[in-house]
Amino acid sequence: MIISESLVEKLLQKDKRSVARSISIIESENSDSSELLKVIYHKVGNAYRIGITGPPGAGKSTITNQLIKVFLNENKTVGVIAVDPTSPYTGGALLGDRVRMNEIGLNPGVFIRSMATRGSLGGLSKTANDAADIIDAAGYDYIIFETVGVGQSELDIAQAADSTIVVLVPESGDSVQAMKAGLMEIADFFVMNKSDRPGSEQAITSLKTILMMKNYEDKLWFPTIIKATAVDNKGVEDIANEIARHRKYLLDTGNFQKRRENHFHMRIKEIVEDRIKKILWSSEGQRKIHSSLDSLKISDISPYKIADEILDNFKKQL
Amino acid sequence: MIISESLVEKLLQKDKRSVARSISIIESENSDSSELLKVIYHKVGNAYRIGITGPPGAGKSTITNQLIKVFLNENKTVGVIAVDPTSPYTGGALLGDRVRMNEIGLNPGVFIRSMATRGSLGGLSKTANDAADIIDAAGYDYIIFETVGVGQSELDIAQAADSTIVVLVPESGDSVQAMKAGLMEIADFFVMNKSDRPGSEQAITSLKTILMMKNYEDKLWFPTIIKATAVDNKGVEDIANEIARHRKYLLDTGNFQKRRENHFHMRIKEIVEDRIKKILWSSEGQRKIHSSLDSLKISDISPYKIADEILDNFKKQL
Repeated sequence: MIISESLVEKLLQKDKRSVARSISIIESENSDSSELLKVIYHKVGNAYRIGITGPPGAGKSTITNQLIKVFLNENKTVGVIAVDPTSPYTGGALLGDRVRMNEIGLNPGVFIRSMATRGSLGGLSKTANDAADIIDAAGYDYIIFETVGVGQSELDIAQAADSTIVVLVPESGDSVQAMKAGLMEIADFFVMNKSDRPGSEQAITSLKTILMMKNYEDKLWFPTIIKATAVDNKGVEDIANEIARHRKYLLDTGNFQKRRENHFHMRIKEIVEDRIKKILWSSEGQRKIHSSLDSLKISDISPYKIADEILDNFKKQL
Repeated sequence: MIISESLVEKLLQKDKRSVARSISIIESENSDSSELLKVIYHKVGNAYRIGITGPPGAGKSTITNQLIKVFLNENKTVGVIAVDPTSPYTGGALLGDRVRMNEIGLNPGVFIRSMATRGSLGGLSKTANDAADIIDAAGYDYIIFETVGVGQSELDIAQAADSTIVVLVPESGDSVQAMKAGLMEIADFFVMNKSDRPGSEQAITSLKTILMMKNYEDKLWFPTIIKATAVDNKGVEDIANEIARHRKYLLDTGNFQKRRENHFHMRIKEIVEDRIKKILWSSEGQRKIHSSLDSLKISDISPYKIADEILDNFKKQL
């Protein structure tokens, strides 16, 4: 057991190094990992979680960066989890952007963690939420998930926030693509970034049309569209205000609790599936597959038949 | 049982309507679905599978479209599975593009199926591979998976091909982003599309540098970079030739069989996990979560503790 009391103690005092080490422990996915998460759980739940997603190149990181500044000015602390391969935090950007983004991470009120979309031992969404719990327990006021809006697990992460923001740019067909990618369903509100570009008004009109065609069950909240040019710091205050307005709406209507309960269910699902995968594909599970194949040519047998066998075997193993 | 003998018979005769209906059956994920896949399995394995992936806007669909024409000229038949939300096939494109793409689908030698990245009952990768088996059994010569190169399941699909092509464009930082997104690892070769744009040579040089830094285990195949401007049909023959060269390399070295075996293992894994999820989250599994929560406030209990309970219950259920 490498989780010392002093690590937990320092973590709960918002010690950045301990936050970082704790996240490394949960990323390593050993037995300490779920132990640590159980120990700190009573401290989790106070941070407000914001998901920022959208197509690559929409300016999600710039908005994140500017929002951090707004929150810092209000004397709030911010944790960022970036799971966007095109984010400057994770390296996919011009050097200048990256330097600017990393600088803000040096601020004592800011903790930034980037996560690879590949190669994590557990599921991406599970790991990102575990990391958020760590940052939450440490006492940060806001947690921002920055994820690219393509791919199911990336959307799942953005969606597991209290407020989910979808960032679009006025390129032709952008909103249609967003619709296809499932972004329309998860947006609490939209940001039309780079709105100084030609075609911006037209893009907003077409987005509005699409939104009006949808049937939103909740009559008290209708997704708005905030115009911004984040690179010039225009509209960022409006985004922060809209987050606050959405937060107030959630609390006033009791939807805050409902939403957190839904996310809690999703969370449990992820954890259970992750554990079962581990039991299933232990070295024994893998051996079973290999031995099934040794004597066979692929074309001889349907993978569905082998799957039947593995499941039978799994039942005996439990 | 809605799988009639005549459906299977017509499917094996490459009847497009029966191919489409069979894929709808496997998408519906009922008991007929695995039955159908078992029945046709002895006919699967003859199609050559090509994965085309890369960032949104790189021109993957245009390349797919042009490659289809090359194959048709060689009197070959082609099936396409598009799981790219930004693809013209799935609707995320200008109307003109979409019309052009849909036109080629009317050719008797071409079958095109688009899949939503969201809302499929089974896993995306499992469903795409099931659909490929249907098209394969129907006797199509080539199967092209077009997927956007962001998101784990999309990459999994592209990677489950015999030849995987990563399409990039000469935008700054594109190859760095591709590296971060895990595209470098899966590429058998690259296409630098829109190579008439400024910065193209520089992008190729930087891609070469990244490739040289990697340690490729296989000394007989090193990923090449093909220059193309697919929209003007430039370089498409080169892409087709490189696919043929890679195919020959796989067959000559015995790597073809090895690769298919690896994919076969992946496939079995996906099927098993999918089935377990179904058992786990049957209405009973869901009820268990709800009843656990009814008497509790979220903050009282760690999701990890509830996961423990659900797993215990699952063991009894099996």
